[in-house]
Amino acid sequence: MSHPVDALLRPKTIAIVGASETGADGWPKAIYGNLEYSGFPAKLYLVNPGRTELWGRKVYPDFASIPEPVDVALMLIPAPAIPEVLAEGAARGLKCGLIYAARFGEDGNAEGIARAQAVKALCDSTGLRVSGPNCMGALAIREKLLLYPAARVRVLPPGPVGVVFQSGGTFMYWLQQASVRGLGFSYAVSSGNELDLDLADLIDFLIEDENTKVITCMVEGVRRPEVFMAAAEKALAARKPIILVKVGRSERGKAAARSHTGALAGNDRVFDALCEKTGIVRCPSLDDLIDTTLAFVAGRIPRGGRVAMAGYSGGAKGLFLDYAADEGLDVTAFTPETTAKLRGLIDAGVAAENPLDTGAGLASQQKKFSGICRIVAADPNVDLIAMQGSLPTLPSEQLDPTVFSDVANSVAKPLIVYGRMAQNVTEEGRKFQQEAGVPFIQGLPETVRALRALVRYGEALRRPVVPIRPARGRAENLSGPSFDRLLASHGLVPPKSTLARTPEEAAAVAAGIGFPVAVKIVSPQASHKTEVGGVALGLADAAAVRAAAQTMASSLRTRDSKAAIDGYLVQEMVSGLEMIIGVRADPQFGPFMIVGIGGVFVEALNDVAVRLLPVDEEIAREMLQSLRGKSLLGPFRGKPPRDTAAVAGAVAGLSRLFLDHREWLSDLEVNPLIALAEGDGVRAVDVRAVPRG
Amino acid sequence: MSHPVDALLRPKTIAIVGASETGADGWPKAIYGNLEYSGFPAKLYLVNPGRTELWGRKVYPDFASIPEPVDVALMLIPAPAIPEVLAEGAARGLKCGLIYAARFGEDGNAEGIARAQAVKALCDSTGLRVSGPNCMGALAIREKLLLYPAARVRVLPPGPVGVVFQSGGTFMYWLQQASVRGLGFSYAVSSGNELDLDLADLIDFLIEDENTKVITCMVEGVRRPEVFMAAAEKALAARKPIILVKVGRSERGKAAARSHTGALAGNDRVFDALCEKTGIVRCPSLDDLIDTTLAFVAGRIPRGGRVAMAGYSGGAKGLFLDYAADEGLDVTAFTPETTAKLRGLIDAGVAAENPLDTGAGLASQQKKFSGICRIVAADPNVDLIAMQGSLPTLPSEQLDPTVFSDVANSVAKPLIVYGRMAQNVTEEGRKFQQEAGVPFIQGLPETVRALRALVRYGEALRRPVVPIRPARGRAENLSGPSFDRLLASHGLVPPKSTLARTPEEAAAVAAGIGFPVAVKIVSPQASHKTEVGGVALGLADAAAVRAAAQTMASSLRTRDSKAAIDGYLVQEMVSGLEMIIGVRADPQFGPFMIVGIGGVFVEALNDVAVRLLPVDEEIAREMLQSLRGKSLLGPFRGKPPRDTAAVAGAVAGLSRLFLDHREWLSDLEVNPLIALAEGDGVRAVDVRAVPRG
Repeated sequence: MSHPVDALLRPKTIAIVGASETGADGWPKAIYGNLEYSGFPAKLYLVNPGRTELWGRKVYPDFASIPEPVDVALMLIPAPAIPEVLAEGAARGLKCGLIYAARFGEDGNAEGIARAQAVKALCDSTGLRVSGPNCMGALAIREKLLLYPAARVRVLPPGPVGVVFQSGGTFMYWLQQASVRGLGFSYAVSSGNELDLDLADLIDFLIEDENTKVITCMVEGVRRPEVFMAAAEKALAARKPIILVKVGRSERGKAAARSHTGALAGNDRVFDALCEKTGIVRCPSLDDLIDTTLAFVAGRIPRGGRVAMAGYSGGAKGLFLDYAADEGLDVTAFTPETTAKLRGLIDAGVAAENPLDTGAGLASQQKKFSGICRIVAADPNVDLIAMQGSLPTLPSEQLDPTVFSDVANSVAKPLIVYGRMAQNVTEEGRKFQQEAGVPFIQGLPETVRALRALVRYGEALRRPVVPIRPARGRAENLSGPSFDRLLASHGLVPPKSTLARTPEEAAAVAAGIGFPVAVKIVSPQASHKTEVGGVALGLADAAAVRAAAQTMASSLRTRDSKAAIDGYLVQEMVSGLEMIIGVRADPQFGPFMIVGIGGVFVEALNDVAVRLLPVDEEIAREMLQSLRGKSLLGPFRGKPPRDTAAVAGAVAGLSRLFLDHREWLSDLEVNPLIALAEGDGVRAVDVRAVPRG
Repeated sequence: MSHPVDALLRPKTIAIVGASETGADGWPKAIYGNLEYSGFPAKLYLVNPGRTELWGRKVYPDFASIPEPVDVALMLIPAPAIPEVLAEGAARGLKCGLIYAARFGEDGNAEGIARAQAVKALCDSTGLRVSGPNCMGALAIREKLLLYPAARVRVLPPGPVGVVFQSGGTFMYWLQQASVRGLGFSYAVSSGNELDLDLADLIDFLIEDENTKVITCMVEGVRRPEVFMAAAEKALAARKPIILVKVGRSERGKAAARSHTGALAGNDRVFDALCEKTGIVRCPSLDDLIDTTLAFVAGRIPRGGRVAMAGYSGGAKGLFLDYAADEGLDVTAFTPETTAKLRGLIDAGVAAENPLDTGAGLASQQKKFSGICRIVAADPNVDLIAMQGSLPTLPSEQLDPTVFSDVANSVAKPLIVYGRMAQNVTEEGRKFQQEAGVPFIQGLPETVRALRALVRYGEALRRPVVPIRPARGRAENLSGPSFDRLLASHGLVPPKSTLARTPEEAAAVAAGIGFPVAVKIVSPQASHKTEVGGVALGLADAAAVRAAAQTMASSLRTRDSKAAIDGYLVQEMVSGLEMIIGVRADPQFGPFMIVGIGGVFVEALNDVAVRLLPVDEEIAREMLQSLRGKSLLGPFRGKPPRDTAAVAGAVAGLSRLFLDHREWLSDLEVNPLIALAEGDGVRAVDVRAVPRG
């Protein structure tokens, strides 16, 4: 066996520890029933020191008496007994324990915590692996290995979706609803509190499983962020999309997730950055998790982001455009050729444009509608297509699946069929969807989100992997003039600034800096310069600089005759858009970049883009584009456009600078970074480097 | 007959104009079939000059030959013939024409426009009413009057929901899906392009109909805003909630709506303000329209906004909190008494808190779970309750509806039952929902939005109606010193400011204003004061003012020896939070108030609250609370909290001032309004009054 999860999901021998007719709420009997139903896909041993026979089988008192090592033991005995029995098993070659019970410290109970520590120590010392505790078991659907304490899992169909849910209560419910919608499964694991085997292990197993094409998860927290990130990158490289719902966008949701499975939800924005980088699709709801998985199971990824929509309801067209605007979907114009072809085919009086409302007349002419959709799909301006349709609910409904399959077969682009609302899905509907060979998505918002997920996954696939080069910076360069030079060489140019000792000298150095300049008095008695008249802005010539400095001095001496004047700071007038850029090392997911506009914006509105490092110029530009306040970067209120190329360069430079010095830095922040007019660059007004604690 | 819609929906006599076996795509025959199926709920006449008998009935050549006046004529003849035939009918006492066909100018075609104008003129001159054109007909469900061209409407059950859809394509589809979910209908109208009878007329009819309890609409545009607003206010007074989906949040969605039904979608933010004021519930999707309508059909409105949630899935608890944070729902703490009662009843290791996860053990103990929910519902800190549950899909499932009805019957508060995801709803499910007597909502986001809709509707019901008093202002008061006094008396206090002619005089008046002050040079040669060194801020005493003024003058004269200096504006230093408040008269919905923080915020981020006038202090405070940037109003970055009472007073004052002068004003805007520290009031730095064009 090559993978640590093999013993759990591909066992050759199984033990039910605690086998009894009525014990453990009937779970041993229910699981036995499932194994019997499947014709015992693995060799089964029953373990219970209090019995010798059950269900016509021999019962063993312990692992020692079993004639061969056991791959997976289903631990259906009270929690306090589990560590000792597992230890006995491990000594006899047991490879994996599946612990269903809770009471392993998830509620903070000291005995439970000690129990968990004992099991963890056993794993570390013996190589035993454990799944759970506090879980609902594991399913190998193709092999019909149903280690779940109820019969209803028997109807789950095999298919390409691998499933890992941390939430046990939602696990089976989601699988049921997903199977109603036509999804089938390879493996499904309720991973519970993940004392040992965790999300990352299970995802890794599913990536390597040839029958798994798409991986679907419900996540409350990530326990080993680096391993999880590595698994996510491996999944992207293998083109196996990970689609998940994660709890904890809000502070209270995060706390609830933690108290539920003990997993740290982490910084939600950084998790989003991880998803962005590794192509993980994050869904807002459990229903979206089904719809978006359906869209990915079809297996086609778009080559670009241009979406076409074709239906026969004008009302839906307007709603689709509203949702597309919400999600930033590119609903592009058809080519003139497409428009010309469509014009004669659709109802009179409706426009031959994208999104396409063919008119209600086409609703009853499905073959003709299919032909129209083929024209839309063939348009070179279109990367993926949403086509109206619904599933039959009764065998008597005479619908023709080739209406949809003909469109799908005419192109290699992704096609999804959308209904305007949720509908019942019956056996007939599932059969029809299978025959049509395309996903039927329920609801317009869900359709738009599924389209967007396909587009973003395609972008992640195409984005070049930027390797993190070895750290090569030196700590002594992080202060003094060498730091200033380092900053400047990374695109983080400071404002020009010179300290003059006298008004005369101020006037002279101002000429060197270039007018207009600002002059600020430097004095221990002028800590709040503005309030003592110690700041003059926009001084246009040497005379104005000299006069302003003199006025400041006399004004300060009027207030405090003993005031010491150290000099006058003459500075380049930096007038531009105030931005903030910074890198911080997240305790879970490592260094991440934030980019925002304006200090007040960042703090009050949380208008920041977040990405994991490394961030190159291309990603930096994407970050700027994603800001709510991005219009401030363009021509705005009569101001010229900002130098976004220089901003992107500064962001990428900050990324390189941090990574080079990552051994010594915890934060590196520029606040403000002033974005000047196009061509004039940026000025890093204030740079703060926080050393590692 | 008392209501203009009576002839359409409660006719005593009907004519099918264009009656034929196969004509008009079979629509006459299909509608005849529906009338026959219902046992002819009204006396029927067939009209067709080309025939004498059809379906065993006499066919009349025209209205003149029909022995009595006709209430509603179903116009199933080609569009070009309709005006003339309607005119003949009107001359013979026809009360209402129902026009299904399009080609009345919706695509800009000149002939169609002329046709529409002819029909409209006929309505105006004769009192004839018209429903449509470009619609799918009308249904009186209780009376089984099914003026719809297909048999599938026959299964729609009677019930309390009145329906008006402008989109004909979505009309029947929504009704079908809504009936699958257990909704029943009083009347349902596809209002089409609303040449005459429109949304407002139909809503008004439904308000007056005693069998209608809730009104559900899909809206693309509002044609007569004042009448619509009056209908909305009447509905609120009658406690009949209006629940709608409106197209046109985005610019492209708006354009699509307009080209679809010819209705102006209007300013979407102002429409939201109208909803806020009149208690209209706006849903984001057609599925939400069903779920939220289910929640309202139950008939209970909460007395406050405190929501409790009780379920048996920990994962769902975290998601619920995330969605509640999105929607600003108040998920309040239980009383200690409730917590104490719950502690012994729920699974060990889970917290007795709101939202309540009872633990998975309770999923199989439904009666006990019901008792737990009764305890939650009884908590005085709880105004409405969401309780986990799902509908049976097969007759064999032994679920007990009293699990839910017992909770509902134990309190007068709204109770909704939520499933974590969408599920199939069968006949058994609908029966169960009926017996339980509570709405079953599908999906957690939909649940949270339905709860929020109930809460906001309750708030709208409780909000006192602020009457608009008669305009009593005088135009001559809108300029000069009397305008300044008017502004000040409405809480719109200008900054203290005096023009001094010399540096000496500036120093003197500064003392009167109070230090620190700002000084600005006033000169035709200094239009950009900052750039010529013509602005000094934070001057702390008379000497500093004098020196600053002198420096400005010499600096200006150095640049331009002929510069004329008119004087020095000495101003109170106004340092505070920059806000914008304004009133504008919307062409559709009348005057509305916008309130936003900071000029740049308003323009770049669209962070504004919008309400229809009148706005009193209470509504003004709600507006401030709804801003994304509201944290800037509290203590922020070491600054004291702003004087929000004075801001609210200024907003309410601006509302009164505008309404008093509404005959003369189109806009009245204060930008910036500076919010000073608590207790220090506000300063209206710049007030712009735009007269009516």
